[in-house]
Amino acid sequence: MTTIFDAPEDFAATALRGFAALYGRYVRLVRNGVVRSTRTPEGKVAVVVGGGSGHYPAFAGYVGLGLADAAVAGDVFASPSTAAVARVCRAAHRGGGILLGFGNYAGDVLNFGVAADELRAEGMDVRIVHVTDDVASAPRETPEKRRGIAGDLVVFKIAGAAAEAGHALDAVERVARHANSRTVTVGVAFGGCTLPGAREPLFTVQKGRMAVGLGIHGEPGVAESEALPAADLARLLTDRLLEERPAGVTRVGALLNGLGATKYEELFVLWTRIAERLSAEGLTVVAPEAGEFVTSLDMSGCSLTLLWLDEELESLWTAPCDTPVLRRGAAPQALEAPGSEDMSGEEGGNAGFARAPEAGRRGAACIAGTFEAMAALLREKEAELGRIDAQAGDGDHGQGMARGSAAALLAARTAAEAGAGTATTLRAAAEAWADRAGGTSGALWGVLLKAFAAELSDDAEPAGEAVVKGARAALDAVMRAGGAKVGDKTLVDAFVPFVDVLDARFAATGSLKIAWTEAAEVAGQAAEATAPLSPKLGRARPLAERSIGHPDAGAVSLAMIATVIGARLS
Amino acid sequence: MTTIFDAPEDFAATALRGFAALYGRYVRLVRNGVVRSTRTPEGKVAVVVGGGSGHYPAFAGYVGLGLADAAVAGDVFASPSTAAVARVCRAAHRGGGILLGFGNYAGDVLNFGVAADELRAEGMDVRIVHVTDDVASAPRETPEKRRGIAGDLVVFKIAGAAAEAGHALDAVERVARHANSRTVTVGVAFGGCTLPGAREPLFTVQKGRMAVGLGIHGEPGVAESEALPAADLARLLTDRLLEERPAGVTRVGALLNGLGATKYEELFVLWTRIAERLSAEGLTVVAPEAGEFVTSLDMSGCSLTLLWLDEELESLWTAPCDTPVLRRGAAPQALEAPGSEDMSGEEGGNAGFARAPEAGRRGAACIAGTFEAMAALLREKEAELGRIDAQAGDGDHGQGMARGSAAALLAARTAAEAGAGTATTLRAAAEAWADRAGGTSGALWGVLLKAFAAELSDDAEPAGEAVVKGARAALDAVMRAGGAKVGDKTLVDAFVPFVDVLDARFAATGSLKIAWTEAAEVAGQAAEATAPLSPKLGRARPLAERSIGHPDAGAVSLAMIATVIGARLS
Repeated sequence: MTTIFDAPEDFAATALRGFAALYGRYVRLVRNGVVRSTRTPEGKVAVVVGGGSGHYPAFAGYVGLGLADAAVAGDVFASPSTAAVARVCRAAHRGGGILLGFGNYAGDVLNFGVAADELRAEGMDVRIVHVTDDVASAPRETPEKRRGIAGDLVVFKIAGAAAEAGHALDAVERVARHANSRTVTVGVAFGGCTLPGAREPLFTVQKGRMAVGLGIHGEPGVAESEALPAADLARLLTDRLLEERPAGVTRVGALLNGLGATKYEELFVLWTRIAERLSAEGLTVVAPEAGEFVTSLDMSGCSLTLLWLDEELESLWTAPCDTPVLRRGAAPQALEAPGSEDMSGEEGGNAGFARAPEAGRRGAACIAGTFEAMAALLREKEAELGRIDAQAGDGDHGQGMARGSAAALLAARTAAEAGAGTATTLRAAAEAWADRAGGTSGALWGVLLKAFAAELSDDAEPAGEAVVKGARAALDAVMRAGGAKVGDKTLVDAFVPFVDVLDARFAATGSLKIAWTEAAEVAGQAAEATAPLSPKLGRARPLAERSIGHPDAGAVSLAMIATVIGARLS
Repeated sequence: MTTIFDAPEDFAATALRGFAALYGRYVRLVRNGVVRSTRTPEGKVAVVVGGGSGHYPAFAGYVGLGLADAAVAGDVFASPSTAAVARVCRAAHRGGGILLGFGNYAGDVLNFGVAADELRAEGMDVRIVHVTDDVASAPRETPEKRRGIAGDLVVFKIAGAAAEAGHALDAVERVARHANSRTVTVGVAFGGCTLPGAREPLFTVQKGRMAVGLGIHGEPGVAESEALPAADLARLLTDRLLEERPAGVTRVGALLNGLGATKYEELFVLWTRIAERLSAEGLTVVAPEAGEFVTSLDMSGCSLTLLWLDEELESLWTAPCDTPVLRRGAAPQALEAPGSEDMSGEEGGNAGFARAPEAGRRGAACIAGTFEAMAALLREKEAELGRIDAQAGDGDHGQGMARGSAAALLAARTAAEAGAGTATTLRAAAEAWADRAGGTSGALWGVLLKAFAAELSDDAEPAGEAVVKGARAALDAVMRAGGAKVGDKTLVDAFVPFVDVLDARFAATGSLKIAWTEAAEVAGQAAEATAPLSPKLGRARPLAERSIGHPDAGAVSLAMIATVIGARLS
């Protein structure tokens, strides 16, 4: 049970602020993340890591000498926005380029990937390493489909040590990929976790039983069994990992990770058995760690990570570091970084909107009005969308959509009041949505709205042909960014028939009202039809299928929004 | 739920072994504890801390430069035995004397106190500081009745810094007492904890509610309320502590402690609110810490500790230290201590028993037979005694008695087989019981049996008068050591009438069988009669009265044992 919070939606941001207040000797707060507060040499490669919150010490606790330079924090179990990633990277960059490290989840891949593109366009050299250590999430033959769990810390430690040693970006990227290919993790869960503000746990494990291979957001495991004595649990974990032992490896790094409610003394008990097993297999364990490294709120369970060492990896694994969560050897003396300006505040603001002609300003008011209707709808449907999403995902879709639309409404109003035109107002709303909603759906709605805006003008109200073209452009952009196709159980399943019907019926009738209304109806049916289908895109989505009987929340919310907008058309 | 273990009774010892295996750079395992593995100057005051297990990082995680020199670990929620405390102190002593630090619980006061006496008899200078920081456990006017909770770490940190700075024992003791008098803590619990191997939690807190002032073993709180938002919870905690703010204090050290299942991010959220409150009260917070410092297995909840600083305390609070759980500033470089002999094995063994005459050897066999019956009884009644104890104490009485009697049986058999006489065999059993059972009852039964043995001879079987005198001597010793009187709801309540009846009826009838049987019956009635009474001696006992309707487990087990022994008399 997550118990201590004020407004649940502020949980992640407030926790980050508290962390930064306590650990000022390591970090300085920036918006949506932290950067080192200690002096970093110019030209050093910056290792920037991140992901959703709720996993402390992942990721802010990894920042310090010999490990990460900065961490980006999304909302609880939700990817940080593209803008957040880019912002933290800019604060951390010292001219040596950036290695972006994060666990392999669709939302993070999307947001970090788009941010990398933006930063490259600004002239920064940015490389990406997704961590894929969870052996239970996909077979050995398709490592790129594996999730990233506690191996995150191992891979980041290796990259951080290489960067601290002064290696160039090419070398840091190479060794980080190498470490990822030799890092394997398997976990078990004894009990679920509860999101701040939620009344029920995200999932439960029956008392006296355990889920094997469960992910860190409650993704289903590969098997369920009786909870085992420590000796048998140690055997189960080590045997699964030893299946992937590369030939000739005799030395391993090890990380025994508690997920939250499983305590240190339990981990120490388990470690005695794991150490026996590894030794019996002829493996020498180098600098093992047991503790909380990647948690899942108050989830009960643990995972074992092994790093198959070679000479290069061993020297980086044992290299000194000094962070809130991990300390090794004699870390070089840290000097406080110069400057202490508060970098966490809101930036920019309405950087002045050009005043649009009368028609464009009427269009802007219409956009703002539309977002008002959308925000009201999504506030009302927040709990329902959350429940639908919880069947197959991590239950945060309702929260993300509510937050995104509220932010978009604010931005659209501000733009409209400042005299901006239709397209500019929609673009401002799109950026606010992407930045504030977080997660996969936040990123996708940002992309969707931005592409829509590109088909509109600042000189006219949104009408007929431009709207139909905008919808088509938005669909294309979403499919490009998300990589999903019809049948993958995402909002695309509802969006494709919506645009097809809108296109066809507008061509036939010339009435946007009629075309849009029919299209929205078809989208609603398509959303319902996502229920009995198979895997879909999304952060923390199951690989096995849990969502039978439940439609996809992203498709449902898209159809709802289409219906509400249709009702406003005249 | 405590989930990972093999044999529950080995949980604490195995966890300690695993901890030492992982943290060899800080500690070396000794029997029942750890000592620093780094070099310590001759003549330095040794700060030795300890208490029950289940509270990691208390107490093994406190060992390292600038903090403790060694830690003694009892079983889960049970005081370490007198022998364990003495043993660890001997391993840590560097000629500068010893400061013994522990939380104020009856079992620890007893075991550490007796150990201190033993060590003083060996010529060591030993001082004791009980930590009494829990403001909810007794009024301000009787600080000596307050329990020690998370303030343990604060007081030990101050003492450790003074010792590391080279201060003599007098000065270290003085500043430790001063720190204790200025350290206050208040805690809340949202949910209970489960002992390894137990099927049900030790206590529960209703969902959505919280217990205010709950102790770290489930001792009842002072109030119950709705679980509060972070801002209100911060106000509740700080306001209670500010009631005890000494005049003129403007600077405080602070420790926000998670009890196990409450996560770091929740603590960080709460910290932002606490910091606001303290600042509003004109207090400057110095080097605050938030994390897990004194846990209670998987208990959900947290506590806030404040240290009212003066110049001396501030310099010690901020002094460098380097331990598994707490690191500050640039700790002096540690050098590995010389020698690496395994100090954790069994010591001594049967150091050779003098062969007793025939009658004494028959007496030894009789003693061994008696312990066989006692061990069988206590194994059978283990769960029942645990249940009775759980009503008012921490539920470990059955486990402790079973473990103690099993160890005593083994020692008695070994002595008897080696040809030892009656008294020597009983003394060997007494020592084994005290050393292995742990907790208050283990210490008391050790004292009881040792005093009994002193009235027996190695040349004769235990008979009539000697047994009656032995029982009286045992009772006197228990009352001296435990400080309890009739009516305090301890085993004394059954023991006093037992000895009185035994004495009187033996004088009247001359039959030990008759006298013992009648005395055992009276003891049984007296044990039952402990049910509706008020506070009693014992580790982790409630201050309020929870045990109405339940007899005292210590009195019950004493009466049971008396009955079983009576049945063996002829």
